[in-house]
Amino acid sequence: MQLQVLLVAGTHGNEINGIWLFEEWEKSSFLIKTHGIKTFKVIGNPEAKKVGKRYVHNDLNRSFKEESLLSFNPLNFEEIRANELVKLYGKSGKNPCQIALDFHTTTASMGSCLVVYGRREADLALAALIQNKLGLPIYLHESDMKETGFLVESWPCGLVVEIGPIGQGLLNCEIISQTKLILENLLEQIQQVKSLNLFFPDKLIIHRHIKSIDFPRNEEGYIDGYVHSQRQSKDWQPLKKNDDLFYKLNGETIKFEEDESYIPVFINEAAYMEKNIAMSLTKRELWDFKNEWKESLIDLVTQ
Amino acid sequence: MQLQVLLVAGTHGNEINGIWLFEEWEKSSFLIKTHGIKTFKVIGNPEAKKVGKRYVHNDLNRSFKEESLLSFNPLNFEEIRANELVKLYGKSGKNPCQIALDFHTTTASMGSCLVVYGRREADLALAALIQNKLGLPIYLHESDMKETGFLVESWPCGLVVEIGPIGQGLLNCEIISQTKLILENLLEQIQQVKSLNLFFPDKLIIHRHIKSIDFPRNEEGYIDGYVHSQRQSKDWQPLKKNDDLFYKLNGETIKFEEDESYIPVFINEAAYMEKNIAMSLTKRELWDFKNEWKESLIDLVTQ
Repeated sequence: MQLQVLLVAGTHGNEINGIWLFEEWEKSSFLIKTHGIKTFKVIGNPEAKKVGKRYVHNDLNRSFKEESLLSFNPLNFEEIRANELVKLYGKSGKNPCQIALDFHTTTASMGSCLVVYGRREADLALAALIQNKLGLPIYLHESDMKETGFLVESWPCGLVVEIGPIGQGLLNCEIISQTKLILENLLEQIQQVKSLNLFFPDKLIIHRHIKSIDFPRNEEGYIDGYVHSQRQSKDWQPLKKNDDLFYKLNGETIKFEEDESYIPVFINEAAYMEKNIAMSLTKRELWDFKNEWKESLIDLVTQ
Repeated sequence: MQLQVLLVAGTHGNEINGIWLFEEWEKSSFLIKTHGIKTFKVIGNPEAKKVGKRYVHNDLNRSFKEESLLSFNPLNFEEIRANELVKLYGKSGKNPCQIALDFHTTTASMGSCLVVYGRREADLALAALIQNKLGLPIYLHESDMKETGFLVESWPCGLVVEIGPIGQGLLNCEIISQTKLILENLLEQIQQVKSLNLFFPDKLIIHRHIKSIDFPRNEEGYIDGYVHSQRQSKDWQPLKKNDDLFYKLNGETIKFEEDESYIPVFINEAAYMEKNIAMSLTKRELWDFKNEWKESLIDLVTQ
């Protein structure tokens, strides 16, 4: 079977840098070096893009749940779209893709990073190759029962690329060029795997999701404090006991009280306010690269 | 007649820092020092706030046109709201206010600044007092027939406060504290005028609007270039002939070609893309403070 890769931008309709890059690429095919890999590029949520919002009815990137893929609500744009994308590009779809790469932006000051969901071997192998090439941090999202149904989980291998900080609905030169750079490097590394021209690293650094924390709220559930200036834009920097965490307008500072220290990510991501997430806390870990990961990615790419 | 000041936040529903500050203030009246000035605070566009957008039907801050205030479309949320605000707080309204202060945020890296519309004497006097106190730049918006109907123009005296950079729909500690600081200083200066405890500066620096420029577009009118990395976030910094201005993904740099040099503002403001504005160009000028401005403001405040 020929290797085919699905490229998605605009899974969230107000993350427009990737959308814009894909639309320009559509007009000028030479813009992106695909390294001979056959790709399909799609705008994830064109309806949400039209109205300039993250989504219309539900977050598309939480709509790839097994139950809603089996039986979807025909009035829900995102459930319809999730089904459509799987039918078109899923592993048993019309144009079967083995790998999905999903390009996002964030309002958090995270720079560029990769997100992997769970511990799928091929995902970890591909993420390790990119970390080795570009030095990007890897955020391993797992053990979070509240947040499920991510797009890439419906493909045998898939990564999310997150680039920030950038406001919603705003084009920015750095964000566009980062998106292009990472896209081209992903395709290049996939091509290297395909041609068995391989160098896998011995180790990789993982930021393992532990939990998310909410903003401070008053008795009615209304947010009554915001991220402290000493913590804002300090993604990837350790959060330790007694560090300033939130600030209230009455002058009160809320400090981090746990004995355990963490590495926070997605600090003050605009879209997560409705999900009751002020930031997510991770543990930074050095993992040994496993031979099975490599085998799994090679199998997928060369089958 | 008692001096009353109208304070507006959320004239644009996705500029949430001022809204949040006002809502916290509503709950804890001690939060803002009003210096004895009687104020009315309102959320400009609560319908747009609910849906997390700049506006529902039309930009509220372009809806205070004379013709639409005389006869408004009853199906247009913003025309309804403009009329309502004038009826409630206009100079002949239920709670007549002499001064309107309208708190905005921008995605451009402009820091904090004041915007005055036209050359109304009381506006210039109040802006000069704040510039003298806090050093804020003043952007004089005039001679722009495409952009009219601003809220503050429906009051005898009024200023817009713009604070950035901040993404739409995002709370930020710096933006909130800047909003609070400028609000309190405005009320303090108005109180000083009221008590005739006055020190007006001799000079003020004005950034006078000359024109706005659009993004590069292809033959179908679609934007095909973005603000160059050498120009992004360089608000208030001179733009001269041959400076890099826009960049296209095909590698082409578009340079600024005019002989005249300008000071750009609102570079890459997300909300202005639909208005075909990539940035506005101003001239920086040193003006003599005029005695009539002072008299006009004193008359208004002490009448």
